Amino acid sequence: MSRVSDQAGQFDRPVGVFDSGIGGLTVAQEITRLLANEQIVYFGDTARVPYGTKSRESVIRFSKDNMNVLLKYGVKVVVIACNTSTSWALSVIRREYAVPVIGVIEPGSRRAVEVTRTGRIGVIATQSTIASGKYTQTIERLLPRAQVTARPCPLFVPLVEEGWIDGKVTESVAEEYLAPIRKAGVDTLILGCTHYPLLKTVIQKVMGKGVTLVDSATETAREVKALLESRGLARQSRRPPRHEFLVSDEPEHFRTLAKRFLGHDLASVRRVDSV
Amino acid sequence: MSRVSDQAGQFDRPVGVFDSGIGGLTVAQEITRLLANEQIVYFGDTARVPYGTKSRESVIRFSKDNMNVLLKYGVKVVVIACNTSTSWALSVIRREYAVPVIGVIEPGSRRAVEVTRTGRIGVIATQSTIASGKYTQTIERLLPRAQVTARPCPLFVPLVEEGWIDGKVTESVAEEYLAPIRKAGVDTLILGCTHYPLLKTVIQKVMGKGVTLVDSATETAREVKALLESRGLARQSRRPPRHEFLVSDEPEHFRTLAKRFLGHDLASVRRVDSV
Repeated sequence: MSRVSDQAGQFDRPVGVFDSGIGGLTVAQEITRLLANEQIVYFGDTARVPYGTKSRESVIRFSKDNMNVLLKYGVKVVVIACNTSTSWALSVIRREYAVPVIGVIEPGSRRAVEVTRTGRIGVIATQSTIASGKYTQTIERLLPRAQVTARPCPLFVPLVEEGWIDGKVTESVAEEYLAPIRKAGVDTLILGCTHYPLLKTVIQKVMGKGVTLVDSATETAREVKALLESRGLARQSRRPPRHEFLVSDEPEHFRTLAKRFLGHDLASVRRVDSV
Repeated sequence: MSRVSDQAGQFDRPVGVFDSGIGGLTVAQEITRLLANEQIVYFGDTARVPYGTKSRESVIRFSKDNMNVLLKYGVKVVVIACNTSTSWALSVIRREYAVPVIGVIEPGSRRAVEVTRTGRIGVIATQSTIASGKYTQTIERLLPRAQVTARPCPLFVPLVEEGWIDGKVTESVAEEYLAPIRKAGVDTLILGCTHYPLLKTVIQKVMGKGVTLVDSATETAREVKALLESRGLARQSRRPPRHEFLVSDEPEHFRTLAKRFLGHDLASVRRVDSV
């Protein structure tokens, strides 16, 4: 790390973002919107995606591998842009690494607690995220009177990856998964997986207009901004930022999906070995 | 290997079976039905499942890791009970390893060519298997007049893993995927992924009674039998066989799904590191 800061001020080093695959791009995009001068190094572990059906032990192991990839690029902060990784690995990683690390669960929960009027909050996420109980714990810590209804939606990620973001099938799946959340009468629903914002239209339709959908991307970007400012780590260089996109499988499929996520092509995507 | 054969005759060593996860259990089950005295060592790479959305390079790398796990158990033959692995890695592995290796594409194709009357054969499989073109090549080699219609069905694996093996959603998905296959007027349809036999009822309903569904499990087991007999490798021991089930993620989820696949509990499932 000291060698990296010899070459460039600490503050000119990039912001690291990792995800199990493609979903974290929504978080990376919010960071570049809010912090237009920052450089991003994004790593998607596309060789081992998805994490949402894997165990705590595997998710922690994979998350550490991802940290080690990003640290080679001299990142000044790491954003875990994956709810499943944040659920199981954030506290372990904060203990074991010196670089500041931000997850997506605390920002998403904070936002939900701000917007709810009734305190009845729904959470949808992967099996592994829901099994961790992290969203419920975080929300109840922030708002002890909250009543949280949490449900896994395992087919949402494959539906998004297949590009079926609307239509009859996706609506049927959403109706099935969201029935218990509707029944609980929530006024706020956390999209607790970075793939889910792509299904916003269908989810909003099934939940009805009265329910506010919360995704953690914007709120997480605000947390990154606050952290960089408070530690004097905002990028100073006048050179235009160059983002890097790294994946553990071949880049082709990632590139195609990225276009669907972001609405534009990524300049360059490279494969790197994570283990 | 010589040390293993010092302890037990070559023929008393186990049959190795690997898959990306759970699907290969259908093949393992057919082997134990046809060859009741054989011992199986099964390895499911549940930490990196699925393979069907991954690239050729990653599938080859993972398949070699799986071979290396099985070789530690002194297997006398390896069955690649995964269509995606067979598609990309079978020829590479046969070149690089001394142990005899059987895939699932040749047996499934042979069976389809036997049962078709019109020569119009459909193939459904993962994206990666279809992209490899291996089924079409194999069928056309066995039956040059064949007309093959091949289509990927990416949501079938997640539907099976979610346990939605029938019902409205699964039927809608099947109708969408199978429409071009029906239009092609096939009389035979290869279920080119070891998860798909669990969706047989829905697939048969959508395709109609006139279409014969072919899965490679039975035919692959026959090929194992023929190979063991021709090489004098059939197990001689009178001790009842003890099968071993190994996975790369925690065993819990595998155990639950295995019960759904096999209709009974697996005696023991252990986690091992594949890399």
